[in-house]
Amino acid sequence: MTPRELHDDAVVIDGLIIAKWNRELFEDMRRGGLTAANCTVSVWEGFQATVDNIVRSNALMAECRDLVRPVRTTADITRAKEEGRTGILFGFQNANAFEDQIGYVEVFKQLGVGIVQMCYNTQNLVGTGCYERDGGLSGFGREIVAEMNRVGIMCDLSHVGGNTSREVIEASEKPVCYSHCLPSGLKEHPRNKSDAELKFIADRGGFVGVTMFTPFLRAGIDATVDDYVEAIEYVMNIVGEDAIGIGTDFTQGHGEDFFEWLTHDKGYARRLTRFGEIINPEGIRTIGEFPNLTEALLRRGFSEPLVRKIMGENWMRVLRDVWGA
Amino acid sequence: MTPRELHDDAVVIDGLIIAKWNRELFEDMRRGGLTAANCTVSVWEGFQATVDNIVRSNALMAECRDLVRPVRTTADITRAKEEGRTGILFGFQNANAFEDQIGYVEVFKQLGVGIVQMCYNTQNLVGTGCYERDGGLSGFGREIVAEMNRVGIMCDLSHVGGNTSREVIEASEKPVCYSHCLPSGLKEHPRNKSDAELKFIADRGGFVGVTMFTPFLRAGIDATVDDYVEAIEYVMNIVGEDAIGIGTDFTQGHGEDFFEWLTHDKGYARRLTRFGEIINPEGIRTIGEFPNLTEALLRRGFSEPLVRKIMGENWMRVLRDVWGA
Repeated sequence: MTPRELHDDAVVIDGLIIAKWNRELFEDMRRGGLTAANCTVSVWEGFQATVDNIVRSNALMAECRDLVRPVRTTADITRAKEEGRTGILFGFQNANAFEDQIGYVEVFKQLGVGIVQMCYNTQNLVGTGCYERDGGLSGFGREIVAEMNRVGIMCDLSHVGGNTSREVIEASEKPVCYSHCLPSGLKEHPRNKSDAELKFIADRGGFVGVTMFTPFLRAGIDATVDDYVEAIEYVMNIVGEDAIGIGTDFTQGHGEDFFEWLTHDKGYARRLTRFGEIINPEGIRTIGEFPNLTEALLRRGFSEPLVRKIMGENWMRVLRDVWGA
Repeated sequence: MTPRELHDDAVVIDGLIIAKWNRELFEDMRRGGLTAANCTVSVWEGFQATVDNIVRSNALMAECRDLVRPVRTTADITRAKEEGRTGILFGFQNANAFEDQIGYVEVFKQLGVGIVQMCYNTQNLVGTGCYERDGGLSGFGREIVAEMNRVGIMCDLSHVGGNTSREVIEASEKPVCYSHCLPSGLKEHPRNKSDAELKFIADRGGFVGVTMFTPFLRAGIDATVDDYVEAIEYVMNIVGEDAIGIGTDFTQGHGEDFFEWLTHDKGYARRLTRFGEIINPEGIRTIGEFPNLTEALLRRGFSEPLVRKIMGENWMRVLRDVWGA
């Protein structure tokens, strides 16, 4: 099997995409051979604005049903593969959309949300993000984790602070994930996870999706797809072959305004960080270039079964564990 | 001057009332000779529900304009005294109504809100309350404190956790308060403040209103107005004669449902505390009995000028310092 044949045959799951949703993007997903992706529909928005995002996304997906399909179960991901479409799984990067209502967790599950990051960079009602001092998981946060466990929404900790992350990992009865992170063993950054943190989540049945966001990669904006593979290998050596996957953090299609919104608390308040120039690693600058990642993993000497695990089979298994189907 | 004459002549300010607002209550305020009170219009509510509370309160106050008047400045309090009406100052017991919008701080100032407690018992976007582990003031919380300073809303810390309280006291450029608290030197309770905490706020220009909520008083539900005076004296010996006032926490007119709402996080989630039987100290069971407090302070041997300070003049001064008028 050639690398391209393997890629086309494999289940390919991207654990985090926060792109500008439109037909061109879905076309690029097909070009990239993406079976399914966790697509962000809420960051700073509250309940109603998030519902509005979902309504718009549903309308767009209906228009583009030749390219994409909704995903609520892993069976939907299998169907997407069979149909040659990309499965769109809704995810949040912030529990803010739950506002102060535990009941909204199930509402969003029913609207198709399968993964929710507990905090985005700063403090919310649940805990605290990775860009400020972190007092840990709140009492309300414990109730939210329990409810997410109950209804089957995966807890994501990528942008969450160290204390809150540790306490969510301990509190959750189902596997949790860093859907898109990099190791601080390769580069120190508030968003990157230490070897101890990666081991902690893996030892407790958790999952790690590796991102390729160049500001957090050792090589920075000079990175290539091989630097991405280096990071994947580094993380895999800590968490093992079954707890690792992809979480690119593609921001494709967004302009400067969007990054300004992301990098300010609540989308408008104090500045939290500056990304500088955002350019993905050479070889995987766009979603359409996804096959190059499979090729690079094989080039690194990874076996075909291992590449299949990394590219999607591991995500599939852990999502089934959390969702129950 | 008899005690009653002194009471009728004094400016009497209650730093916290969370009663059921209706004509009977306003009549009792007049009976009690109350010049002004900080009246709670938001606890667990979000922005819009709080605006709705204010709209309802405005309508009620318009109906009862023979008894009450709105207060936005200390000049309004002086006018209330001259007119023989009670000045109603809107306050929140939770910054939750600001939601994630710094701009809502000024909106509420324009709607007549003069005092806002940063947290109510649990974590919000600003910090954490006194009934759970407290990670301190958040970055967003610092922006809210600065905005409250700018527009002239007093920061209240009564139900706020120790770490968040200390950091608000340090961050605020204007005096802050515990509008309604008791000393843990007389009874240990998560809601009561230690000698060190009372000294800390007073040393930094802050203010302490003393409550009489019997679950937090040494004598419990057997307390009398003299036990209330004991607590006032205890606090005064720490904070001094100029930084002390009254903050009764009258809940007059509310039933069991209201206390259930207060004692659960967000009004419905996990239970935070149980008050047990709620009965105010003998001698000051209702707002109408307020003159008995003046009499009890005099009976304790406090001078007439000191009683005037405690009963309202100190609140008047500190509110002018914060509001600028």
